[in-house]
Amino acid sequence: MKDFKANLNKLFYPDSIAVVGTNKVVGTVPHDILRNILDADFNGVVYPVSPKERFVAGIKAYRYVTDIPDPVDLAILVFPSSVIHLALEQCGQIGIKAVIIISAGFKEVGGDGIEREKKVKEIADKYGMSIIGPNCLGVINTDARSKINASFARRMPEEGSIGFLSQSGALCTAVLDYAYAKHIGFSKFISFGNKADVTEIDLLYYLKDDPKTKVILMYLEEVTDGPGLMKAAQAVIKAGKPVLILKSGRTSEGASAAASHTGSMAGSDDVCDAAFRQARIIRCQDIDEMFNIAIAFAYQPIPKSKKIAIITNAGGPGVLTTDAAIHDGLELAKFSEETTAVLKKNLPKTANINNPVDVIGDARADRYNVALSAAFKDPDVDGVFVILTPQSMTEIDLIAREVAKVSHHYRKPVYTSFMGEADVAQGIDVLQRNKIPHYTLPESMCRAFATVYQFGIEQKEQPKKVKIFEDVDDKIVAEIINDVKSSGKQYLTEDLSDKVLKAYGLPVVRADVASSPEEAVKIAETIGYPVVMKVVSNEIIHKSEAGGVILNISSADDVKTSYKTILKNAGIYDPNAQIKGILIEQMIPEGEEVILGLKRDNSFGPVIMFGLGGIYVEVFKDVSFRVAPLNVTDVEHMIAETKSSAILQGIRGKKPRDMEKLIECILRLSQLAVNHPDIKELDINPLIVREKGLGAFVADARIML
Amino acid sequence: MKDFKANLNKLFYPDSIAVVGTNKVVGTVPHDILRNILDADFNGVVYPVSPKERFVAGIKAYRYVTDIPDPVDLAILVFPSSVIHLALEQCGQIGIKAVIIISAGFKEVGGDGIEREKKVKEIADKYGMSIIGPNCLGVINTDARSKINASFARRMPEEGSIGFLSQSGALCTAVLDYAYAKHIGFSKFISFGNKADVTEIDLLYYLKDDPKTKVILMYLEEVTDGPGLMKAAQAVIKAGKPVLILKSGRTSEGASAAASHTGSMAGSDDVCDAAFRQARIIRCQDIDEMFNIAIAFAYQPIPKSKKIAIITNAGGPGVLTTDAAIHDGLELAKFSEETTAVLKKNLPKTANINNPVDVIGDARADRYNVALSAAFKDPDVDGVFVILTPQSMTEIDLIAREVAKVSHHYRKPVYTSFMGEADVAQGIDVLQRNKIPHYTLPESMCRAFATVYQFGIEQKEQPKKVKIFEDVDDKIVAEIINDVKSSGKQYLTEDLSDKVLKAYGLPVVRADVASSPEEAVKIAETIGYPVVMKVVSNEIIHKSEAGGVILNISSADDVKTSYKTILKNAGIYDPNAQIKGILIEQMIPEGEEVILGLKRDNSFGPVIMFGLGGIYVEVFKDVSFRVAPLNVTDVEHMIAETKSSAILQGIRGKKPRDMEKLIECILRLSQLAVNHPDIKELDINPLIVREKGLGAFVADARIML
Repeated sequence: MKDFKANLNKLFYPDSIAVVGTNKVVGTVPHDILRNILDADFNGVVYPVSPKERFVAGIKAYRYVTDIPDPVDLAILVFPSSVIHLALEQCGQIGIKAVIIISAGFKEVGGDGIEREKKVKEIADKYGMSIIGPNCLGVINTDARSKINASFARRMPEEGSIGFLSQSGALCTAVLDYAYAKHIGFSKFISFGNKADVTEIDLLYYLKDDPKTKVILMYLEEVTDGPGLMKAAQAVIKAGKPVLILKSGRTSEGASAAASHTGSMAGSDDVCDAAFRQARIIRCQDIDEMFNIAIAFAYQPIPKSKKIAIITNAGGPGVLTTDAAIHDGLELAKFSEETTAVLKKNLPKTANINNPVDVIGDARADRYNVALSAAFKDPDVDGVFVILTPQSMTEIDLIAREVAKVSHHYRKPVYTSFMGEADVAQGIDVLQRNKIPHYTLPESMCRAFATVYQFGIEQKEQPKKVKIFEDVDDKIVAEIINDVKSSGKQYLTEDLSDKVLKAYGLPVVRADVASSPEEAVKIAETIGYPVVMKVVSNEIIHKSEAGGVILNISSADDVKTSYKTILKNAGIYDPNAQIKGILIEQMIPEGEEVILGLKRDNSFGPVIMFGLGGIYVEVFKDVSFRVAPLNVTDVEHMIAETKSSAILQGIRGKKPRDMEKLIECILRLSQLAVNHPDIKELDINPLIVREKGLGAFVADARIML
Repeated sequence: MKDFKANLNKLFYPDSIAVVGTNKVVGTVPHDILRNILDADFNGVVYPVSPKERFVAGIKAYRYVTDIPDPVDLAILVFPSSVIHLALEQCGQIGIKAVIIISAGFKEVGGDGIEREKKVKEIADKYGMSIIGPNCLGVINTDARSKINASFARRMPEEGSIGFLSQSGALCTAVLDYAYAKHIGFSKFISFGNKADVTEIDLLYYLKDDPKTKVILMYLEEVTDGPGLMKAAQAVIKAGKPVLILKSGRTSEGASAAASHTGSMAGSDDVCDAAFRQARIIRCQDIDEMFNIAIAFAYQPIPKSKKIAIITNAGGPGVLTTDAAIHDGLELAKFSEETTAVLKKNLPKTANINNPVDVIGDARADRYNVALSAAFKDPDVDGVFVILTPQSMTEIDLIAREVAKVSHHYRKPVYTSFMGEADVAQGIDVLQRNKIPHYTLPESMCRAFATVYQFGIEQKEQPKKVKIFEDVDDKIVAEIINDVKSSGKQYLTEDLSDKVLKAYGLPVVRADVASSPEEAVKIAETIGYPVVMKVVSNEIIHKSEAGGVILNISSADDVKTSYKTILKNAGIYDPNAQIKGILIEQMIPEGEEVILGLKRDNSFGPVIMFGLGGIYVEVFKDVSFRVAPLNVTDVEHMIAETKSSAILQGIRGKKPRDMEKLIECILRLSQLAVNHPDIKELDINPLIVREKGLGAFVADARIML
């Protein structure tokens, strides 16, 4: 019924806009938003709607939106939250499909606000309307075809190829100011507020198809639909557009601060981190980092390799840049003989003609020109970094122009860092106007380049499909879960856990309980020697301490003797203990202990955890997460992400472990997580991973509903 | 003979300056440096010295420095490097004690340059002169008593309390420009170049006693005398002045770029990192971080606790700030009832009156005033963070003034972040002129606060003295080392290694070699049971594989049987092997394996390494370093720095290990490292650390000369 795409097209490219609730009081939101639309030279008709005014800003005003004699594509509501629903109903009645609600006073204030927001959503759905907001700054579209500044921001940004989405309206004002000063342009700029109807996910899909948008940036406080966000981001990224997200609420204190102003519920930040990585979303740590990377994507081609040339007029900054480049995994290109010859011929003797090229403090624009051209031409160079410090004879402005001019002839990225602030300002301005990425710090420059390079590499990888195992028995699992649930319990006993895992093809240790020596022998022979025998008794918790565990039993005779020994030991340890029998288990050969886990995250749903057992998890917290369903690549990344996984490759004389089996176990667990959402928590601790080719065994497991 | 302090006083506070080698060509260093001295309104007499000119800049010029009829305190040499020594000799002859050599063409160009630099140093020593440079930008002293800009920088910085030292001249120009734009002032600004004579260490001692300097910043490419630098920094820090260093050449590529322009030799960056931490030097990652922390120290008191209040007009940035604060270990203060009441009464209903305080987007200066005053007054608040985004009604300028005015009444630090760039510029300017630390990013603000807080905490700690063990036998160690050296070998055999360690009271496993079963029993009984027996043969490397090792032998009979078994096994394994005897060793009980190491670093000298054995070192690279000599605190920090040290505290049911003994072993190793510099490398791998109270044992060790 609701056509998102058509509605959002009306939102961004309306032929007519009604500003509902506007007034004549300059400096207030209801007035300023109308003024902003007019000032931005909107390519269409604007209708002020005000119950009290005959006109606003020289334009005839209508009492109600229903009084407007012509069709309206977009309504902007600046009424108080208490009466919003009335205005919204009217919008619906006259067929308006796109609405922006600027007003606050909804979910974020709690109480009645929550009800008001529900009502907004109901009306939107009733009329098939798409609504941005409430509690937002508004929407900006710089496209000359529309030119709409439907926001109360101080200024209209330049046109550009960055799409910006923000859950916080106030942050938008800082971002617009920041971008204005740096000549950073936007395609679409959307403050989506409480996302009562249109969410960041809808907007991602819209911007995916927006030809004006090359890169998408987002500030997010709350991930409501994690899997949906991941899927949308993946679609956008597949279309060649990187998605950069600054997600706040990383700490519980931050999350509760966020909750107090947006009413959001946080999932785990570690999971969010992993999920973003899984979806190839670039998670940024601050606004600066986000724009540092964004301008690199927006202005320059993706580098073909990570081999860069550094050109500097200052040795120290050259060293700092080299350090940062290497630290971020970049490489210094090796110049060809031709390049070296050109540099030698045209630069002074004191210059360093190797990479990093030092054109020396007294360099003017001509030397930069020589070094730039030579570097761009060199076949080993796939990116050029230009560093400048303002020495007394430095032609800052001219050198900036030179960078713009020379780089224009090559399809290789150029990044710059003119260090300082006041004296270099004019040069930086030239660079920024010419869409040459500029960085205050060489360190940020290197990080941006490395991020763009990595994105390029990942773009080339073919995403693998999720393998579905057909040999699983969902019926058994469902039955067990239903039985346990109907018995009112929240956890599965050991034998039921084992059955569930077995039904999913997970290698559970074979075991059974015997009540006589003869039965014990029968079981041992079914399982196969060697076996382990353990006392089963509710009273005896510390089985080993009680002498209730015997390992490595290899014959029928030994089984019988062990049976008696265990009974005797148990009797001595606790004469009152009720012995339920003796457990006969397959003896698990030597292997590496890993832990697999499944949890349900508030934001992302089923999350799989991996880590090496014991100390690695406890002391090093060396674990990794991924959101199910997982494909093979996800699992490989997930394992590789832990430092201790090197141990599985075989170190200190040990042979490599059965990685194939480990990966299979994780994939099966992922499928179980997806198909049986009633399983709230599952721990396999440990899974014993044997030598390559010898498989793995679940030694212990726990399932919670 | 050389009185550094007196000489440096002449350098920074001269009554007269000779600019030797100046000329009339505007835009060249020899001319501009004279012009800079005049423009800065130097409080003394300037004498141009030029063989060719009758006057420069309207001032009578002298042919040679020896022609000047009056005493000269400071000479600035801008002659070509090839004739510097002549001018320098003349300076020496007329008793000039302070010289700055601006000219390049010395060590950094290699070849003849190295010779020229040596000559400079010789002349300096001959006449007891102190020389800054060569290859530098010069020296600036903003103190009104002197006002000297003896540099070719574009501008004289403001007066302030930051002392800045730089090995790179070119970086200085960027720093001066950066600081100018932010109204950051300096007390002394010194480009020390090749440090042929006066080093960063001399300058640290000078600035320690300079009443105008509160914080010291340094850019360093090469640590020549690591221990000297640490000692100087510790003295400065003890005097209450933090030392911040940006050390480049972190990567080997960076280091070689540095070498190509200063001819420096790099030590290990991990060691440098550890040494700085040990000396409490704050190592900065980039220029921005350095000044972010510096202004906090320079402008504001050290916070009494890490409990802060956040005041913001924007929810999103409030969340980002909270996240960053918690991430950096800060805490949100809990407001008193009184504070909450004041906020409730004076802020609008929609405001968040808890911490972080959200005064809401439409806040004007009055609301900030209310929130600021309340926060400063609250007894739980020891620091106030002010966040602002430029919304259309935000009184940016006024709010900045309000921050300056209110904070003036309290002795609690206030930090600010006005987010954006263009619109907020005027407000930021007000803050910067009023010496209120301002940060582009809330994240940098939190990091700076946390660093200053940490410095305050460490200042209160009483540094421990290095304990000297009197029970060591240096004579034996010296003898062994001399013997081995005179035999031309570079390593000690196992028995000699053991003797050295024993002489230093390190718990070497008791052992001796037997050549008959009877002797074996005698040895075993001296050592005490249980023992381990091992074959001794040059041909049998893999002793266990050969059946040449038997563990846990507890009786005389078993010793005899084992003796024969080992001989038999060895004979089967390699019939040609020469058996030198059987080693009888004390059997080491269960314990945690740790690795102790000693290396000589190019920059810092004797370095002690610590890590947990095996996987923790190999896979996790979980090791820590400290420069010897170590005190107890150093060792405690060093151990705590490794993640795996948690294992020593006793986890997973294990009891805590003998930390006291471990610390003692490291301290003894440190003393050995200091007293016997001929030991180039020493590895104790592993040291077995037993349960608390049961000691530790050196299981294996290796010493290289």
